[in-house]
Amino acid sequence: MRIALGVEYAGTHFCGWQFQPHAPSIQGCVEAALSKVAHHPVTVICAGRTDTGVHALAQVIHMDVTAQRSPRSWVLGANANLSKDISILWAQPVDEGFHARFSASARHYRYIILNRPTRPALLAKQVTWEHRPLNVEKMQVAANYLIGTHDFSSYRALACQAKNPIRTLSSLTVSRVDEQVIIEISANAFLHHMVRNIAGVLMTIGCGEQLPLWAKTVLESRNRTQGGVTAPASGLYLCGVDYPSPYIFPKQSIL
Amino acid sequence: MRIALGVEYAGTHFCGWQFQPHAPSIQGCVEAALSKVAHHPVTVICAGRTDTGVHALAQVIHMDVTAQRSPRSWVLGANANLSKDISILWAQPVDEGFHARFSASARHYRYIILNRPTRPALLAKQVTWEHRPLNVEKMQVAANYLIGTHDFSSYRALACQAKNPIRTLSSLTVSRVDEQVIIEISANAFLHHMVRNIAGVLMTIGCGEQLPLWAKTVLESRNRTQGGVTAPASGLYLCGVDYPSPYIFPKQSIL
Repeated sequence: MRIALGVEYAGTHFCGWQFQPHAPSIQGCVEAALSKVAHHPVTVICAGRTDTGVHALAQVIHMDVTAQRSPRSWVLGANANLSKDISILWAQPVDEGFHARFSASARHYRYIILNRPTRPALLAKQVTWEHRPLNVEKMQVAANYLIGTHDFSSYRALACQAKNPIRTLSSLTVSRVDEQVIIEISANAFLHHMVRNIAGVLMTIGCGEQLPLWAKTVLESRNRTQGGVTAPASGLYLCGVDYPSPYIFPKQSIL
Repeated sequence: MRIALGVEYAGTHFCGWQFQPHAPSIQGCVEAALSKVAHHPVTVICAGRTDTGVHALAQVIHMDVTAQRSPRSWVLGANANLSKDISILWAQPVDEGFHARFSASARHYRYIILNRPTRPALLAKQVTWEHRPLNVEKMQVAANYLIGTHDFSSYRALACQAKNPIRTLSSLTVSRVDEQVIIEISANAFLHHMVRNIAGVLMTIGCGEQLPLWAKTVLESRNRTQGGVTAPASGLYLCGVDYPSPYIFPKQSIL
């Protein structure tokens, strides 16, 4: 049977989501923990493969198992076998038509910038620090150029393996809460490094190095070398994945 | 000359504020960094000596130095010599009458509880986890019994060395923001473990093990053995210190 699960993790100490033979990955840890509960090897597939240092508040994964366990047993059993920086939030049986990656209709990411003169201590690995004052209004003007369906070649990693660079960005907002500047971004799917490259361009505009229109110029060049720096991974959070009916998952745990 | 400084830190990897010869302390790290900037040994005195694992958003300290440096130089120089989980936020010259501890008129602490069925991953060391649902209204009723000037013997550590157990608690509020239950507490000063012991009693009441009136019964017994468990350090933050006029410090950095 197929089970969907929600996962929260701090990406700091991992090489990213994807399994790698010689480095600790979130996938590797989650599969090892679930395999112990299942008493057989388990492979998991995720909605969004996060990079090294990127965090998730609500990653969604699925697995096929022969073991019969209650949702509560999957959650508690896996968490008992996981390191402190990964937590399974919920588990829910789904039909065979569900696929964590291919069924997803939208992904939501959040990018958090601590915008103050001195570097962070408490959230050193959980935000990106920018000491120059960011103009949130200018960042939002720039962001508006990116909303819609576009060829995002300029905003993807050179190593990005997606065949099609066209994505539909449904929402991109920039707001300030005290010292934090928060970028919220939603799309049907994302290219490799797309959120961090967008954050890099918006931060360059926010601190006055470029005008808001530059975000559009970069977009229309369809050329990664015209883009800005890739913003650091530490500020990036996968914070939600949408699925069409009938797949309704808890926002958080169902225990 | 005397300099006051603001300090933010994640207490997780330290034995607490106070210098200890064989364990990493925040005081030890801060003194070593400031001594490098001053080019002479520096001793610092803090407003509130936090325990192992307790965090600070706005600790206030002072030091006496002979070196002439700008506030900006103290901040940048010290931060260049500090580990990533400690950050000097501001520096400001003060007169000799100022004392970080004895001049303080009030301390503000925050206690953060992640209240959900599954354990935290992202903030594993930055919150206290309580899986049982907490009734915030009952916690607030209990909290109200503690506001005012009382003998807090029941709420201090057995090892507390303060001569006088009477403190004036000016404010104690309990609120919920999504999955977080936040206790905000202000007093002229606190006894050893006082916030964590109050948090422990409030959590016991919040999960229904005791009635709100128990907070008052414990208080009036003036006996630590009648109290509840000491809540974990990971959820505790020193988030502000007040000083009387003319000492006005930045809420955050002045760089």
